[in-house]
Parts: sequence; structure tokens; C-alpha cells
Amino acid sequence: MKRLAILGSTGSIGRQTLEVIRAFPGRFKVVALAGGSNLSLLKKQVSEFKPGFFCTELGAESERVLKASYLSIDEIAAHPDVELVVVATAGKAGLGPTLAAIRAGKTVALANKEVLVMAGEIVTAEARRHKVEILPIDSEHSAIWQCLRGESNKEIARLILTASGGPFRAKTKKQLAEVTPEDALRHPTWQMGTKVTVDSATLMNKGMEIIEAHWLFGVPFPKIEVVIHPQSIIHSMVEFVDGSVKAQLSLPDMRLPIQCALTYPERWQAAFPQNVDFSKVGLLSFESVDLDRFPCLRLAREAAERGGTYPAVLSAADEVAVELFLKKKIGFLDIARLVERTLERHNGVRHPSLEEIIAADKWAREVARAGIRGRR
Amino acid sequence: MKRLAILGSTGSIGRQTLEVIRAFPGRFKVVALAGGSNLSLLKKQVSEFKPGFFCTELGAESERVLKASYLSIDEIAAHPDVELVVVATAGKAGLGPTLAAIRAGKTVALANKEVLVMAGEIVTAEARRHKVEILPIDSEHSAIWQCLRGESNKEIARLILTASGGPFRAKTKKQLAEVTPEDALRHPTWQMGTKVTVDSATLMNKGMEIIEAHWLFGVPFPKIEVVIHPQSIIHSMVEFVDGSVKAQLSLPDMRLPIQCALTYPERWQAAFPQNVDFSKVGLLSFESVDLDRFPCLRLAREAAERGGTYPAVLSAADEVAVELFLKKKIGFLDIARLVERTLERHNGVRHPSLEEIIAADKWAREVARAGIRGRR
Repeated sequence: MKRLAILGSTGSIGRQTLEVIRAFPGRFKVVALAGGSNLSLLKKQVSEFKPGFFCTELGAESERVLKASYLSIDEIAAHPDVELVVVATAGKAGLGPTLAAIRAGKTVALANKEVLVMAGEIVTAEARRHKVEILPIDSEHSAIWQCLRGESNKEIARLILTASGGPFRAKTKKQLAEVTPEDALRHPTWQMGTKVTVDSATLMNKGMEIIEAHWLFGVPFPKIEVVIHPQSIIHSMVEFVDGSVKAQLSLPDMRLPIQCALTYPERWQAAFPQNVDFSKVGLLSFESVDLDRFPCLRLAREAAERGGTYPAVLSAADEVAVELFLKKKIGFLDIARLVERTLERHNGVRHPSLEEIIAADKWAREVARAGIRGRR
Repeated sequence: MKRLAILGSTGSIGRQTLEVIRAFPGRFKVVALAGGSNLSLLKKQVSEFKPGFFCTELGAESERVLKASYLSIDEIAAHPDVELVVVATAGKAGLGPTLAAIRAGKTVALANKEVLVMAGEIVTAEARRHKVEILPIDSEHSAIWQCLRGESNKEIARLILTASGGPFRAKTKKQLAEVTPEDALRHPTWQMGTKVTVDSATLMNKGMEIIEAHWLFGVPFPKIEVVIHPQSIIHSMVEFVDGSVKAQLSLPDMRLPIQCALTYPERWQAAFPQNVDFSKVGLLSFESVDLDRFPCLRLAREAAERGGTYPAVLSAADEVAVELFLKKKIGFLDIARLVERTLERHNGVRHPSLEEIIAADKWAREVARAGIRGRR
């Protein structure tokens, strides 16, 4: 029985992780759950999965209601009863507990992109030092990880990240200026949280995945490509030095990469079987990315190449920009503009400490907010 | 330096194997070459690669010309100086030397389909007994083999063999009755020998690959599917029990699966780099197989399920039928008819000995030839 802690249990990935766990009775023990502010859902999860420990943004006062002990999220991540920590938090919230889990020698199943975008160098160095495995839950990185089983990372020629292209793939730049948050939240193939759905529409999500892939698999940025693949069946590919390419495919359902990480190194019968019928699928198509219409991908690549605190600034500025877009305070194309302006004003720190990363994040949020205020 | 014997060096796969070897100077030593009746080409190969030993259908008398020692093909396969035997012979010629190589503990790189179609049970049992690895050179089986690296064969849900569909994919049954050998030899994606090109047009080739895949990977026949994929970019796929599918992709060039087998367990820089540019490829499509127009696939599946000597009869009758078709003695649709009639008349032997397999092969050739004579 694998003993799990789930951080971010009330979010989209957290809820789907619990669906997978529910489908395998007796094979997982949920030791601890950390939710955000949705206390009523967290209560339901606690009464169903009966963890000994919980954490919520609302603090310890719910201890009596939940009949479990309150711990901080870092205490949960490092708890001696826990084997595998699922980091399904959003934004920078996952950074502290991921490091706490790694330092306590726990395997980490990582769905929280920002952890590696902000602090990939520190997190992967700590993971190597503590001989801890980081198992990706993102569908793209799970695909690459699966393709690399039994292969040597030294024999990678390039990683090919696929992108659905989002809901605005076919829109002109003029049309993009007019799209609404409602339009952006209608993703053609994936059901996800609002932040990542908007990031998929701008392709910032794919840009952050380039940075994640770099840290997870040790591949230099110029060897990480992005190709648009609207059907979201091929989740990513690896080309090896001999020219052979391996791809991982499935219908778009996050429960599969979640299950892959939870059952690793085994594969279990699908909790939610959804086989691809290729003759019904008919065709898989590919297009190159138009960086003019989707400048966020270019910005992410530039921040990645500059390294240091730039990716943290990218991520923080994007979080502010997406929030402002969702509140209809800025237009869709302003997301990239705001991020770009914030990056331009940043004086990066090379090989930053965690404190410097957090300071850069804070700085970027302030500058991005001021940037939009300044525009008015 | 890997020490190789190449059986069938003057054929299509043999010549491409030597191209790969030529591209890696100092990394392979060709210990022995076995060619067919093309003595002038074999002479050139011997003078370039300077093997100590050779074999040709023309016998020992060319020993002086070739400045190498003549050995039988079985002696070459089992020679103490040889590490890896590339079996690139055609038809049943590879069976004896493959067994000789396995019994002498050599790794076998297998391109000769009929070896496993005729005697898969015996060959794989001997390989297990002698702890010998059989490395597939066929593009489809190489794809599956690559997808299975680092995976457990017990976790396979199904194998999905892709088929280009050959030159007649879109033809009606009426049109198929009229096609000529010249039409059949115009394969849309692969350059291969004549026998396998015609087998690709009838889909008998794919049927034999089902049988090969069964023996190579221990997967039951109902879990081996075929899907038409006209672009020949995805060379085959594996679906695992959790629903995840892995595929291997590359441009259609046999030198890649050859290189994969020769350099295994490593991957080396491509001898003939041909990267897939996915945005140029544009699309990959899939269709189901029409068993009515391509009955050879059904016949192969039936022979596979019946087992014993039936696959050997299938293969032998097909060899006769293809030869008759190429000589314009029978029509394209007669290939399946002749094979079917031969299978119907066969009294199979279960778990046959090698002698019984060879007897069934001989019987089938006679019956197939008589069948066509009887038709006149």
C-alpha cells in the first residue's frame, strides 16, 4: 500500500488524483490532504479518505470539524508516514513543500509547473543530492518520461513537446485582440483549471513546459521543440541520436498521467479505460507555432535562455496578467505585453538562492500590477 | 568492435546493413559474409570488408577468387569469431543458420520473417534455452521492441502494427483483379525486395508480422491489431494495460532499424540522418483494414490461430503464389485463393519438429504448384 500526501487536493489535479485512488481500493493510503480555501470539499475528501493529517489555508480551527490533525503544508510534505507526495498545488504554493518533501527523501509526483519554472536548478540539485525521483504528472512530461524508460538521457537528440494550440489556434492577431475570458476558457481538448487554460490559449503554458522539460530531463533549451498538434493524442515525443522518435499517445485525460505516476514503476489496469481507436481517430495533424500571434512562447524561451531569476519573473508576471485578463482589466494580447515589459525591467540574478527567487517573484508581481496601473 | 556475420549480404537488407557498417569505421568487424548467387557483388563486398569467411550458393570454388575461406552458412552462423549474426536471408533459407547461431550462443539480428513464421515456437524456445537475444530488424518489430525498452511485457494490452496499405490501398476488388506485377512492385513508401513488396500489396506481409510479433514479444494473437497508416511514419505501437500507448516514428528507411539492432543496447549518431519534421509531415492518418479486399491478412490470422504447421504452409504457399504472380501465371487475387486452397488441404501437426515443419513447407509448395496446374 503506497502512502500518499496530496497537496492541492481540492484543485483539478488533486480531485482527479483522488478519483484514481478511489478506483484502486486497498492499494493506496491517503496519509494527508492539503486543500486551499474550499473547506466544504476538503471536508468531504477528509471524511471519505480519512487521512490522519490535513492542511488548509483557513488554518487549524477546522481541526475539530475534520477529525484529523492540522499540520503546515511543509510538515505534511515531510511527514514520516508519507512515501509519495503529489504536488498538485497551483502557482508558487508548491515550491516550499516540494523542497520539504525532497529533503525528507520522499518521491515527488509533480503537477505544479511553477516549481520547476521558478526554481528548477535548486529543486533538481536537491533531488539529486537526496536521491529522490521527481515523477512528472503533466501530460507532456509524463509522455517524455514514459518514452525515456529504458533509454539513456545522453542519447536524446531533441524533445518535441506537442501543443493543442488552444482555442485560438486559427485566429488572426486582430481577432485575438478581441477574445474574452469566456472564449479563452473553452479549451478544445483538455479540462483544466482556469490559469492553465488561459496559459494554453496564449501558449505560455507550453513555454513553461519547455523550462520544466529542461530541468526534468537535462536537455538544453535549443533541443526542446514545440509543435502544434490539435488533436492532443500525441502528448509529446523524444528523438534519439540515431534518428528514432518515440511518442506517447492516449486520449486527453489527466487521470492517465496521474495513474502512471502513482503506480510507477508498475503499470496497472486503467482506472478509467479509454483506448484510442486509431481508425476512428482518423488523423493526427501537426503545424508549426506562429510566434507572432503567440509571443508568450518566445518570451518563455528567452527567459529560459537567460536563466537565473528570469523564469520566476516570467511566471509571476504571467500569473498577474492572466488574473487581470480574467477580470477583464486587460485584453488577451496584453498578457504577453505585460509579461514582456516586466521581463525587460528585470535585473536578473544568476544561480539565485531560493530567497532571491521569491524576491524576484514578489518584485515581478508588483511591477506587473504597477505596469497595468501605469497604463491607465 | 562488434564482430558480425551477415547472412544474405547481397540482398536488400544485407546491402543496407553493409552501408550502416561502412558509416561507422572501426566499430564493426565483418567476420563473415554469406551471399546468394550474385557472385560479382559478393566479390566486391569481400574485397571491401575483408571477412575471413564467406559462403555462396555457388560453392567453395570461388575460394581462390575471394581470398577468404569457404564455410557452409550454418558454420558461419556458429563461428567462434562471431558475436552477432545478421539474418538477412529470404524465405526459409534463414531457418537453419538462425538455429545454428542461437545454439552457438550468438545474438541474432533477424530480418528474415519466415524464420519465426515457420518455426517461431522452436526458435524462441531455443533462444530462451541458450539465453540468446533475438533483435528484430523489421521496421514494425523494431518499433515495438524500442517501445518496450524499460517496460514489462506482462503490462502489454495490445500491439498495434501499422501497415502502409501498399500500392493498392484505394483499389476496388474489381481493380485488384487487373493489377500487374509492375503495379505491385511500385510500393508507395518502402524500397524492398520483390517478394516482400508483393506481400505488402496483398497485406500477407502484415499477416506474417502478426505471427512474428507473437513469437518475439509473447503477445496472444487477439491482442495484435493492424491499422492502415499510409505515411509509414509510425512504424508500430504498443498499448499498455493502463491505456498509455507508445509509438516509434521515423522516415521509412530500413537503415534505422538495422542500426538500432547493430548498436544495441546503445544508440549511436545516425549513420544516415533523416529527422522527421512534424510540421512538414503535416498529418498522419489511420484507416481500418478491409479484409474483403485483402483476404491474405485474414488467412494469416487463421493460420496463426491454428498454429502448428499452418503458418509454415501459409508462408510456403504464399512464396509459390507470389512467384507465379510475378511470372504473370496467376492474377493478384489468385495469390490469396491459392494460399487459402493450400491451407484448406493441409492436415496440421501440433508442436511440430523442425523436420515436420520442413516437410509441411515442401508439401505446401507442391500442392500450391499442383493447384495452379490443376486450375488450367
